[in-house]
Amino acid sequence: MPPPQFQHLFQAPTGTRDFYPLELARLRYIQDAWRRVSIRHGFDEIDGPTFEHLELYTVKSGEGIVSELFSFQRFSGEKTYALRPEFTPTLARLYSAKANSLPRPTKWFWQQNCFRAERPQRGRLREFCQWNCDIIGDDAPPQRADAELIAVCVELLRELGLTPEKVKIRISHRGAIETMLKVRGVAEETLPAWFFLLDRVGRISNDDFLSEATKLGMKAEVATGVLRAMAMSTPFENPTTETFLSEHVGGRGPEYFKALFAELKGAGVADWCVLNLGIVRGLAYYTGMVFEIHEASGKERAIAGGGRYDTLIELFGGPPTPAVGFGMGDVVLSLVLKDNGLFPDDKKLAGQLGLRPDAFVLSNGTDEAEAAVGPVVAMLRRAGLHARRSYKASKNVGKLIKDATSAGLGGGGAKWLVILESAGAATVKDLDSGQQHPEPIPIGQLAGFIKG
Amino acid sequence: MPPPQFQHLFQAPTGTRDFYPLELARLRYIQDAWRRVSIRHGFDEIDGPTFEHLELYTVKSGEGIVSELFSFQRFSGEKTYALRPEFTPTLARLYSAKANSLPRPTKWFWQQNCFRAERPQRGRLREFCQWNCDIIGDDAPPQRADAELIAVCVELLRELGLTPEKVKIRISHRGAIETMLKVRGVAEETLPAWFFLLDRVGRISNDDFLSEATKLGMKAEVATGVLRAMAMSTPFENPTTETFLSEHVGGRGPEYFKALFAELKGAGVADWCVLNLGIVRGLAYYTGMVFEIHEASGKERAIAGGGRYDTLIELFGGPPTPAVGFGMGDVVLSLVLKDNGLFPDDKKLAGQLGLRPDAFVLSNGTDEAEAAVGPVVAMLRRAGLHARRSYKASKNVGKLIKDATSAGLGGGGAKWLVILESAGAATVKDLDSGQQHPEPIPIGQLAGFIKG
Repeated sequence: MPPPQFQHLFQAPTGTRDFYPLELARLRYIQDAWRRVSIRHGFDEIDGPTFEHLELYTVKSGEGIVSELFSFQRFSGEKTYALRPEFTPTLARLYSAKANSLPRPTKWFWQQNCFRAERPQRGRLREFCQWNCDIIGDDAPPQRADAELIAVCVELLRELGLTPEKVKIRISHRGAIETMLKVRGVAEETLPAWFFLLDRVGRISNDDFLSEATKLGMKAEVATGVLRAMAMSTPFENPTTETFLSEHVGGRGPEYFKALFAELKGAGVADWCVLNLGIVRGLAYYTGMVFEIHEASGKERAIAGGGRYDTLIELFGGPPTPAVGFGMGDVVLSLVLKDNGLFPDDKKLAGQLGLRPDAFVLSNGTDEAEAAVGPVVAMLRRAGLHARRSYKASKNVGKLIKDATSAGLGGGGAKWLVILESAGAATVKDLDSGQQHPEPIPIGQLAGFIKG
Repeated sequence: MPPPQFQHLFQAPTGTRDFYPLELARLRYIQDAWRRVSIRHGFDEIDGPTFEHLELYTVKSGEGIVSELFSFQRFSGEKTYALRPEFTPTLARLYSAKANSLPRPTKWFWQQNCFRAERPQRGRLREFCQWNCDIIGDDAPPQRADAELIAVCVELLRELGLTPEKVKIRISHRGAIETMLKVRGVAEETLPAWFFLLDRVGRISNDDFLSEATKLGMKAEVATGVLRAMAMSTPFENPTTETFLSEHVGGRGPEYFKALFAELKGAGVADWCVLNLGIVRGLAYYTGMVFEIHEASGKERAIAGGGRYDTLIELFGGPPTPAVGFGMGDVVLSLVLKDNGLFPDDKKLAGQLGLRPDAFVLSNGTDEAEAAVGPVVAMLRRAGLHARRSYKASKNVGKLIKDATSAGLGGGGAKWLVILESAGAATVKDLDSGQQHPEPIPIGQLAGFIKG
């Protein structure tokens, strides 16, 4: 054992994870679904550096972000870098650099790791995997791209076995929230302070909220109305929603939500969505629709969040460009899938990921057959088959067959058992049906036989 | 445009890369092959944190590594971390932690990004992608796992279209090099200095080599013999190889190489391999066979490198465990594929990666059909099809059809063109054959029809 001062070396750093094969398979299961759903919806994948110039993040989020970053400087003459806490600044940089030659709209997805220098908590780690989809530069009214993006989220959730009863897409709109505040007498210049406050609702007590609202110049009974409006979570089709919107929101809010709902309905995802003005999304750059996906009980953090950011591309040197996007992490999603028993069992998981061995090769124990195991396995692999072998010195065929039936990740066993009878021929057995092929197969025909 | 002091923000940091969709597709093409070949050879995938405690790297490589690391400290009370320059220390940590419950041998693969704080050069970046395969704890004589690992490399190269004429696996052995030095009078205690010197052969002039060898106490004519032995690169089957080995190496070297060659021949990969004692591998932890893969002209850096490291697992707190592994980066491999014209063209690449759209949907221009585009596309996607659409306001069907024939990454076009004639029926055309289906397809049957 290592001396005590080295003990910490033998653990992953705080808030990061080690992935042994089965744990990694569960992450790959999620990532495969992310990728499949992205491609199906016409998104192209992009990627960028794992670290960027620190200022790329402060340009967007202000100096406050620095305390949440892992930052470093390599050479004293060089700039300071930071591990990416999110991908959007990189995406904005990539889009801005080629804005004029990119299609309208450009639809990009991304999945990689992000880093946040925070104290780890349930659902929040220092390193995690994130999936982003963004629609940039769509020239139609915003509800078309907004709804298409929400539909991507729904199809991902559906693909993983979730249902509208288990998760909800809570949709809000920065403009609608602004109007809701303005009709209650809030002045333009205090809006940032108000958004900062609204974003903390649920994490601070109602009394604290009312006291802060009073400091911002709003009467307590009016502020209580704000809290009530934010707490209301209602299906779009509910007849009270329209009344609610015209009473609490006004302006163009009702019109936008009506158009968005028509799009969501057309895409077949409206039953997953509710209107909820309580969704604020702290980040300052959202300009229109914002949404979060939550487990219905509300006990976990958000599974995903996103919204419209029509001014960000310009901030990064590009032309004025409408854009909408979301990010979904693997950590909360994994908790929700686990709590709902939605991960396939280990055998099925390995099968779905294409990890089940096609063949498990052993010898009948003679020297000639034993010496042929390596070459036969190599030949099967070259033919494109996933072939495993016994590495044991044991010649107890019974025991070795047991290894074949539990081979591969998850212990599901190989499809075919191959027992070399000599260097030239093998007995083969279908391990699913238990059926042994009546005659030995010549080695030269083995790969073709197994491929069917 | 941003002010000059922000210009650097709009470029990726030195030595890192931005990946637009086609560039990323070329990386994914390599990574897919890495994954496919690993799985076929019975390796299970693992992963670990992107950064580790700094000391995890100095334990293995000494303090000298620190200058090549991106390191940082988050909170003053916390340890110093470093971005991983390689994965082997993490692998050793993972194996050591569960050594007693893991199968013998354990076969793991890994592919992720690594980071080196060096000045970027051709073939060497600050962030790059790497593929590792390791066989840990095989109880048979070393040549079995050594040859299996080399076979994995060969199958990857073959899969990507390379041939034994274009790339060579240069194989050496730390013990053989030691013996070669010792029979020339080198003392045990100067071996580390000698390995440091030998590792620089090719990067320093022969004169500098001879002068340093003399300083280490070897006569110039003997040192010239060392250079000659290192320069000799010979097929294993060459009759001079045995003579060479017994003259220059002695000890158990010839016996090991003979056994290794038999294994390589059995696996069908011997024609890719040459014996070359010039391969030293600077890293101190190798204990047996070492190898590198080089483009035949020798003009690029190594495509891959690896070897046996039988003492490393113990260094990380595990039991004494034989192990052999290699790492292959994406940067040099990409250059070699590009120089040899081995990347598929953009259309084929997209097809091979499963990125070709199944359907491209547009309307005949009527309001009813136009309104149905979104819902029909959503329906096709839900059925698992990759469906794209026209986002243009244009109703010029001729122009829109042109978009369909160039849709998708690489501009290969969709498989099927779907023109909605109403909300209920569509004309469909096979864009490969140019054949239009004689009758409109009812929307409810569209997904089934396209799936065939």
